[in-house]
Amino acid sequence: MSIANTPVPPYYAVIFTSKLSDNCIGYDEMANKMTDLVKNQKGFLGMESARENIGITVSYWDSISSIKNWKNNIEHKQAQKLGKEKWYTTYKTRIVKIEHDYGFNLD
Amino acid sequence: MSIANTPVPPYYAVIFTSKLSDNCIGYDEMANKMTDLVKNQKGFLGMESARENIGITVSYWDSISSIKNWKNNIEHKQAQKLGKEKWYTTYKTRIVKIEHDYGFNLD
Repeated sequence: MSIANTPVPPYYAVIFTSKLSDNCIGYDEMANKMTDLVKNQKGFLGMESARENIGITVSYWDSISSIKNWKNNIEHKQAQKLGKEKWYTTYKTRIVKIEHDYGFNLD
Repeated sequence: MSIANTPVPPYYAVIFTSKLSDNCIGYDEMANKMTDLVKNQKGFLGMESARENIGITVSYWDSISSIKNWKNNIEHKQAQKLGKEKWYTTYKTRIVKIEHDYGFNLD
């Protein structure tokens, strides 16, 4: 996992923040499957993810339309359903527009 | 650390993604100091943070103006300088507008 190499703004993102339940059966497998699947979606620009007490996943997109397509992807919808039923005690999804960015890189 | 209890959109956020260098002397102390300091800033709405291979910190704000004030806070500027000089090999700061959010909570 590295920092996403995103284009010049504006672009869009989904900030998905979650807490896991004690029932983690199947979670890692599904998370890996979704990570593979999202990379092939139209308009996908990159992803960043980390988990400690909470998990934060930020996926970057070229448009709101691409975010909607991903939300409605059949396999992703199944993952969302299982997440709500089993894996998460709480989550929040925020749809955002990146207006400005900057940084530095010694890597 | 829990999921930030943010208001109805629109509101704003800073997504700060980073990788740490091998020189971590003073980092935890400064991170804790900044976490305390940010909570008292005008327009601060909440924060979410997690670190694995990369660190992701999302701070939420009522306006771009509040984000600018925080960026220019004297103590925060000193932390930014040390971060760039010592603690980070790379980082990216993204200023975003939250347009839409949803979630669920069993906690």
